Amino acid sequence: MNRPIGLFDSGFGGLTVMKEVVRHLPNENLIYLGDTANLPYGNKSPQTIIELAQQNATFLLSKQIKLLIIACHTACSRALETLQKSLPIPIIGVIQPGVELLLRTTRTQRVAILGTTSTIESGVFQSLIQKTHPHVQIYPIACPLFVPLIEEGHHNTQAATLIAHSYLEPLKKAKVDTVLLACTHYPLMRAVLQQVLGPDVQLVEPAELCAIQAREFLQSSQLLNTQNEKPHYEFYASDDPEKFRRLGKHFLGDEIQFTAKII
Amino acid sequence: MNRPIGLFDSGFGGLTVMKEVVRHLPNENLIYLGDTANLPYGNKSPQTIIELAQQNATFLLSKQIKLLIIACHTACSRALETLQKSLPIPIIGVIQPGVELLLRTTRTQRVAILGTTSTIESGVFQSLIQKTHPHVQIYPIACPLFVPLIEEGHHNTQAATLIAHSYLEPLKKAKVDTVLLACTHYPLMRAVLQQVLGPDVQLVEPAELCAIQAREFLQSSQLLNTQNEKPHYEFYASDDPEKFRRLGKHFLGDEIQFTAKII
Repeated sequence: MNRPIGLFDSGFGGLTVMKEVVRHLPNENLIYLGDTANLPYGNKSPQTIIELAQQNATFLLSKQIKLLIIACHTACSRALETLQKSLPIPIIGVIQPGVELLLRTTRTQRVAILGTTSTIESGVFQSLIQKTHPHVQIYPIACPLFVPLIEEGHHNTQAATLIAHSYLEPLKKAKVDTVLLACTHYPLMRAVLQQVLGPDVQLVEPAELCAIQAREFLQSSQLLNTQNEKPHYEFYASDDPEKFRRLGKHFLGDEIQFTAKII
Repeated sequence: MNRPIGLFDSGFGGLTVMKEVVRHLPNENLIYLGDTANLPYGNKSPQTIIELAQQNATFLLSKQIKLLIIACHTACSRALETLQKSLPIPIIGVIQPGVELLLRTTRTQRVAILGTTSTIESGVFQSLIQKTHPHVQIYPIACPLFVPLIEEGHHNTQAATLIAHSYLEPLKKAKVDTVLLACTHYPLMRAVLQQVLGPDVQLVEPAELCAIQAREFLQSSQLLNTQNEKPHYEFYASDDPEKFRRLGKHFLGDEIQFTAKII
């Protein structure tokens, strides 16, 4: 079925997920919405985030999507349940694959979760993990400056390293062996985070597993696009499409051509 | 006349202006709106900023304000003209007083303007100064990370100093003698900025002159509140009032009691 898959994020971070979806579902038509007019989501209240997520979903539904991927941890942590109850199509988020990866990777059962203030305050990761793995020690850390540093291209600087040190200080004593990057922007700071946390700590991110889960779901539901046409990618931004086009390339990588319209 | 004065900003920064209004107009009732649900304004497109400024003005007009103070440089630089054309009440902004102070202070006629990306890109300061003082050399610098650093309480850190150094690097050769803080957040970074720029550079900010201009306007229009009741301050935030209450104190200072309702 050639109806597209829809993805949304507050801005550019979700493109790290889209990149994996393109890799694992190379035949699918994709529509990406970056809600750049309302970025960042990470410091907003739960109610505001739910309203924005509903707006985004409504827009993508109007494009006849067959599956929605919420490529934003903040939106998932606050709005996934509400959207799952109200939308007539299936939804895949980034939280469940992140939790799976974290539990699969840790050997010491001591893990950390890095996210926006809202994601961390939601407690979603903590309660999901504790439900099935109550013995796992979880260290949740809000890193509110990472998104602006990345959006402004300052994520590979000494200042970013200092800020990362100040946020991750509590982890030095905690001796975690696995750290989940629970914000789709954070993979762009991977080098700095690895340097601050040291080489023995594994950094995991949900983008690839999220894409694999989407593929498995479409396979099992017989919803894969079996037509052999070149897939079509559309990008929408709620603010300044030119900035989106410019910055989007950093996230998606050069191999994906921006042939699509951005309105 | 006891109708209130209205002020708005994208968030907390405008409280640095409100503080001066309280000092210079101690009898006036004030209503402050922080549009925290849409913060920050500095990276948004002109059209989005105009729409948000109109929403804020409409809200304050419904509170029967007699004068509107736009306590946000980004909103002023993009929306002041539109609002002046459409609103039935007088409006005072922060740009005109900033320009006056800058021109009054400089001896070498070499000045810098620090602001958000949108404020700097608007070119408003440059064109206002060049209209009357074409010989003044202007160095406009966008500092997009200052607002998040301040909002997250990281403005007095070594990371903030490094980021300030990276933004202000071009000023080292420019030999400016006066720097305008053209964002109502930036006064909270004054110590760091002074350290980076050196003791010979004067930092100026428009908050006090803006308040004085508001007083002069009300006097000359016979709109001052002449009643002797204790003035009433109301605060509104478009997102999470509790966070607004907590952070607002850093901006307003302790001398102003938060007796007012925040909804």
